[in-house]
Amino acid sequence: MLLSVINPNTTAAMTDQIAAAARSVAGPGTEIVGVTPTMGPASIESHYDEALAVPGLLDAIIRSQRSETPADGYLVACFGDPGLDAAREISPVPVIGIAEAAMHVASLLGRGFSVVTTLGRTIGRAEELSERYGMSKRCRGIHACEIPVLELETNPDTAAILIDACRAAAENDGSDAIVLGCAGMADLAHLISQKIGIPVIDGVAAGTLLLQSLVTMQAAPASSGELAPPPPKTYSGILAQFGE
Amino acid sequence: MLLSVINPNTTAAMTDQIAAAARSVAGPGTEIVGVTPTMGPASIESHYDEALAVPGLLDAIIRSQRSETPADGYLVACFGDPGLDAAREISPVPVIGIAEAAMHVASLLGRGFSVVTTLGRTIGRAEELSERYGMSKRCRGIHACEIPVLELETNPDTAAILIDACRAAAENDGSDAIVLGCAGMADLAHLISQKIGIPVIDGVAAGTLLLQSLVTMQAAPASSGELAPPPPKTYSGILAQFGE
Amino acid sequence: MLLSVINPNTTAAMTDQIAAAARSVAGPGTEIVGVTPTMGPASIESHYDEALAVPGLLDAIIRSQRSETPADGYLVACFGDPGLDAAREISPVPVIGIAEAAMHVASLLGRGFSVVTTLGRTIGRAEELSERYGMSKRCRGIHACEIPVLELETNPDTAAILIDACRAAAENDGSDAIVLGCAGMADLAHLISQKIGIPVIDGVAAGTLLLQSLVTMQAAPASSGELAPPPPKTYSGILAQFGE
Amino acid sequence: MLLSVINPNTTAAMTDQIAAAARSVAGPGTEIVGVTPTMGPASIESHYDEALAVPGLLDAIIRSQRSETPADGYLVACFGDPGLDAAREISPVPVIGIAEAAMHVASLLGRGFSVVTTLGRTIGRAEELSERYGMSKRCRGIHACEIPVLELETNPDTAAILIDACRAAAENDGSDAIVLGCAGMADLAHLISQKIGIPVIDGVAAGTLLLQSLVTMQAAPASSGELAPPPPKTYSGILAQFGE
Amino acid sequence: MLLSVINPNTTAAMTDQIAAAARSVAGPGTEIVGVTPTMGPASIESHYDEALAVPGLLDAIIRSQRSETPADGYLVACFGDPGLDAAREISPVPVIGIAEAAMHVASLLGRGFSVVTTLGRTIGRAEELSERYGMSKRCRGIHACEIPVLELETNPDTAAILIDACRAAAENDGSDAIVLGCAGMADLAHLISQKIGIPVIDGVAAGTLLLQSLVTMQAAPASSGELAPPPPKTYSGILAQFGE
Amino acid sequence: MLLSVINPNTTAAMTDQIAAAARSVAGPGTEIVGVTPTMGPASIESHYDEALAVPGLLDAIIRSQRSETPADGYLVACFGDPGLDAAREISPVPVIGIAEAAMHVASLLGRGFSVVTTLGRTIGRAEELSERYGMSKRCRGIHACEIPVLELETNPDTAAILIDACRAAAENDGSDAIVLGCAGMADLAHLISQKIGIPVIDGVAAGTLLLQSLVTMQAAPASSGELAPPPPKTYSGILAQFGE
Repeated sequence: MLLSVINPNTTAAMTDQIAAAARSVAGPGTEIVGVTPTMGPASIESHYDEALAVPGLLDAIIRSQRSETPADGYLVACFGDPGLDAAREISPVPVIGIAEAAMHVASLLGRGFSVVTTLGRTIGRAEELSERYGMSKRCRGIHACEIPVLELETNPDTAAILIDACRAAAENDGSDAIVLGCAGMADLAHLISQKIGIPVIDGVAAGTLLLQSLVTMQAAPASSGELAPPPPKTYSGILAQFGE
Repeated sequence: MLLSVINPNTTAAMTDQIAAAARSVAGPGTEIVGVTPTMGPASIESHYDEALAVPGLLDAIIRSQRSETPADGYLVACFGDPGLDAAREISPVPVIGIAEAAMHVASLLGRGFSVVTTLGRTIGRAEELSERYGMSKRCRGIHACEIPVLELETNPDTAAILIDACRAAAENDGSDAIVLGCAGMADLAHLISQKIGIPVIDGVAAGTLLLQSLVTMQAAPASSGELAPPPPKTYSGILAQFGE
Repeated sequence: MLLSVINPNTTAAMTDQIAAAARSVAGPGTEIVGVTPTMGPASIESHYDEALAVPGLLDAIIRSQRSETPADGYLVACFGDPGLDAAREISPVPVIGIAEAAMHVASLLGRGFSVVTTLGRTIGRAEELSERYGMSKRCRGIHACEIPVLELETNPDTAAILIDACRAAAENDGSDAIVLGCAGMADLAHLISQKIGIPVIDGVAAGTLLLQSLVTMQAAPASSGELAPPPPKTYSGILAQFGE
Repeated sequence: MLLSVINPNTTAAMTDQIAAAARSVAGPGTEIVGVTPTMGPASIESHYDEALAVPGLLDAIIRSQRSETPADGYLVACFGDPGLDAAREISPVPVIGIAEAAMHVASLLGRGFSVVTTLGRTIGRAEELSERYGMSKRCRGIHACEIPVLELETNPDTAAILIDACRAAAENDGSDAIVLGCAGMADLAHLISQKIGIPVIDGVAAGTLLLQSLVTMQAAPASSGELAPPPPKTYSGILAQFGE
Repeated sequence: MLLSVINPNTTAAMTDQIAAAARSVAGPGTEIVGVTPTMGPASIESHYDEALAVPGLLDAIIRSQRSETPADGYLVACFGDPGLDAAREISPVPVIGIAEAAMHVASLLGRGFSVVTTLGRTIGRAEELSERYGMSKRCRGIHACEIPVLELETNPDTAAILIDACRAAAENDGSDAIVLGCAGMADLAHLISQKIGIPVIDGVAAGTLLLQSLVTMQAAPASSGELAPPPPKTYSGILAQFGE
Repeated sequence: MLLSVINPNTTAAMTDQIAAAARSVAGPGTEIVGVTPTMGPASIESHYDEALAVPGLLDAIIRSQRSETPADGYLVACFGDPGLDAAREISPVPVIGIAEAAMHVASLLGRGFSVVTTLGRTIGRAEELSERYGMSKRCRGIHACEIPVLELETNPDTAAILIDACRAAAENDGSDAIVLGCAGMADLAHLISQKIGIPVIDGVAAGTLLLQSLVTMQAAPASSGELAPPPPKTYSGILAQFGE
């Protein structure tokens, strides 16, 4: 099967890193393609960025579906799970977000988990997703390490800061697992887990495996009801290409 | 004060109708300007439309703020309340959505209300908003009249169908008030209320009055925390204008 | 329109102060009358006081409705929102409580707010109201400044103590707004907001504006159902006047 | 021990009936005294009646406590549980409401129960109490038999109507028990249970037994915190007797 | 009436202590018999112990029912309330758990209570029960004293440690009552209550009194529906005796 | 990897069927072994059966871990998810229940799902699990087909009855997916899905794939905290083997 891992921001280096994380867990018959959108923000650190990342994400799915090798499933690799409902309307195959994936998997490992994310201003969105996914009681705390998304890769102290933040979160919240709150942290999950002694869930790995599971089960979303294809209509201005 | 009522779809006739509804309740010192975005869908009837209406909405706020007569408050006149968090980040003045406004006002009139919306496929979003605004227990039912947004104006039976749907919803749910689930229904609120004998809340009127109230109280959102202005960054492709 | 702002305690000086706060936000065509009940406690600082403030409140509404100039709406200006359901049964026009008004307005300004009230023993009631109004997730903390109601006016340190308490609440809870938990704090809202940099909502101002909005929308409560006029019956003893 | 069963309405015949129901379950060493207030409504069928029943209830507790034979516990025998928090503030011994008692007991008998009450307009209050007591998930439905309180005794069809209503509620809601929603139904609990084959809980019996249990355990409410005695103060008008 | 108090672990000395606690509150006509199972763990300190205590508990009920003097009600005297649903299926008379009993009783004494239990690893189960019984909002904290079950009796510092833990819990959580989280703490309830000044609820006493109340009310569980007797079938291996 | 699929009842033919369902979705490197316990009930259709299935389940895990080829993960293949917490305490590798797996997977496919189970008396347990897993809002209905577990295989109408029940559930609840409520229905999932046009999730397939995902991610449960290995102690009677 072919799984498309879409990085909703436009930083190609981050896409490569995410695709590598996905490949590291994918099964033998699963091919991973990393996708960088053709429009949108260089990183997602606000509701504004998140909202404006959605057109690029939808465009990437439309292009894939119209291509000769449409993917069998899409992973939205940003912890805000932007555009998930819209993506599911236009995709005939499963779409999963990494926050959704990580929270569901973490809930299978014990009674409670903590989230460690990048900037404090993203905590509200993580809280909202936790409620949306039914995780209010399981998610015992959401904590920020205050490293901006694009500095995760360049800051020499990222690993040390995250290890400390994850350990503190686990102790403070009495949690059985940690969920990493940014796709850019994917490569550190195993290291942190070894250091703090409880499972650390990276949404890219979790999402890739859940997506592969859905495709294996042939569990495509219903094509009727709330997530049926959107009624066609005219679009104007610079977004005209989304209409018809 | 100057209030900007933004119709997030690109149908100018609907903008005029919405602005008229806002003006019909605005106080003596309140000026209403209706705004149609320069990009996006002709109507909003899916998660896809809603997501792609947000860039136009944000663009409209940015233009207003950069103009010589920036508005003192923004009303987002689509019942899906698209882009509310993003809009609040970029606006130094209050922003309100019409679903938010209508549900809060309806909750002041009794123990429970029902929502009557356009297409059945929008019920899921209304449910999600109801939970987000803390209205899960107050909102006793969400019902569709199955008239598409742009037909509300042209269908000769709109009033009759809505009266029937609102009466049935009130009886079935034992509700004390009805919330109309589309900005395009604004002009029918009083008629329906007279026919069915309980209050019928139109979000455009409710939102205009709440927005006017916030401006009067000088209750601008905090400029720090989750809704602080977004960190500036590069945007690519057709969305490059949203960067800085 | 004529709005009646009822101070449910019998301290006339406090009524004057509350009416002034209401007038400071009322629109050009809105007349405010402050009302002090003819029976009940001098201040409300317990469930006992609150329960025994209700007869005076109901009496004030009955007198207003039987007068030559019945009010177009009633604001119940005590943060425990005493007697709201009973008041709505006997009033043909809207009735709003200041806790209800303040919490709904605060929820429009961000993801979470804190309440700062008078005595610690009133926290339980505020919590109960927060749940009743669907604000459990929005209301992040309720804190007491431990100044009794009637000392708010006379204590020279009231402003300083409240500024500190509001700042501490906002920081501790990560809140986007503060709700003042007593009608007697109304005149300090703007000062505190300036000092701590986030919006501070006074329920008297919020309630006056919401009430004015409901009257403008002609959104009177339904006269059938749970809030229909109470079935007439005999009342005994010192409460005999409430019967018939 | 001496338990005081207070009928919050002023109909003495109903007090007698309630006291008899209490006596029928009280233990050997438990004496029951039925109390009719000296003020208030003849029956409680609205929020207005309920609010105005509270002064008489509080007065009855104050008189008992000041008497030579103060009761060891108070049962508030109206299904709206009026004035419970206020009563607990002024009572040094346990106070229980019959709705509270009946719902807690019913929840011990299976996964869900239904309430069958008098008039439809009281359903909202029962719903509110169910949430207050943590019974939202257990309470599967609240149904009205539409017999006014004082007709329960005189209407020759009361038993038949209630049997039908309870059976229908149990079947419709899939409930394991029925809770009777009015003190005036106390004498019918066993008959209905025999007819419909599942337990039928009368709050007067349940409340008498829970109150007796609390007294036996010496579980008086804390005298500090939210339910500490109310701060003394002046009361005015016809309620002056409540001050001091 | 005859009430059977079953200690689900196999330590007979603990059974004696529990039966004594039950007898100390039972009414004049109530006989208490303490029962130690014939199989299972010496104490219950894990989910593993709890699961493996259930066969012995069920066996004890079956033996009692088949005996010449079947009990009129069963109290399950372990704070994890093991096997409650299964016990109710096979018992024609009421069955109550001590956590269930203690939490319901504590909720009648104020707005919030705290639980003080033995080992930290049992907190998750107590949390789960609190939700099951609708006590999520009432139960403000669950705290461990870290004394193993069988050391409660032998550790000379048990009383002092528990007094400190209960006082700290009450202050930290602002609670109106304490619930003791182990049947082995039953004899200390009054002492602790005297020391800390708020009610301390022991589940053995609370459960005995609730059970006696249910029997008095003749409130046996429904014999149809979810808790009807289990369909008979073959059982294999060492559990063969449970079949047929 | 080696995954052990444990059928908690003692019917070997059902174990074979379950193992086949697991094998049909397992990845190339995943070996499935089906396990029938050495003790317990022939089928699980009551809380009694479920409680008494746990010793056999725990015994199977202990035997596997002590064997030369301990499994890398355990799937508990009964929709009541019996003994999950206890199993996690004694297993150093992941343990998943099929209800848990099916509900999490179904929640990834749309806004709501329905469960179709065997006997009506199991609905309560499914409801409880749905809440435990945070699925209360997603799980829109639980319906029984009233075919006993062991007749699923032999009843010639099973497929037809289930297709009808699933279609009715989807329509009635407006659901986007169906969850099958018994391991014995595993082989019918694809057929039903084809007939009714929305995804039908079998917990055996879902659980096998989630378990395989956890093992791939090396996401073993924490060995400290609530799920740490149970403290060793003496066990008595026929359960002596569980002690040590």
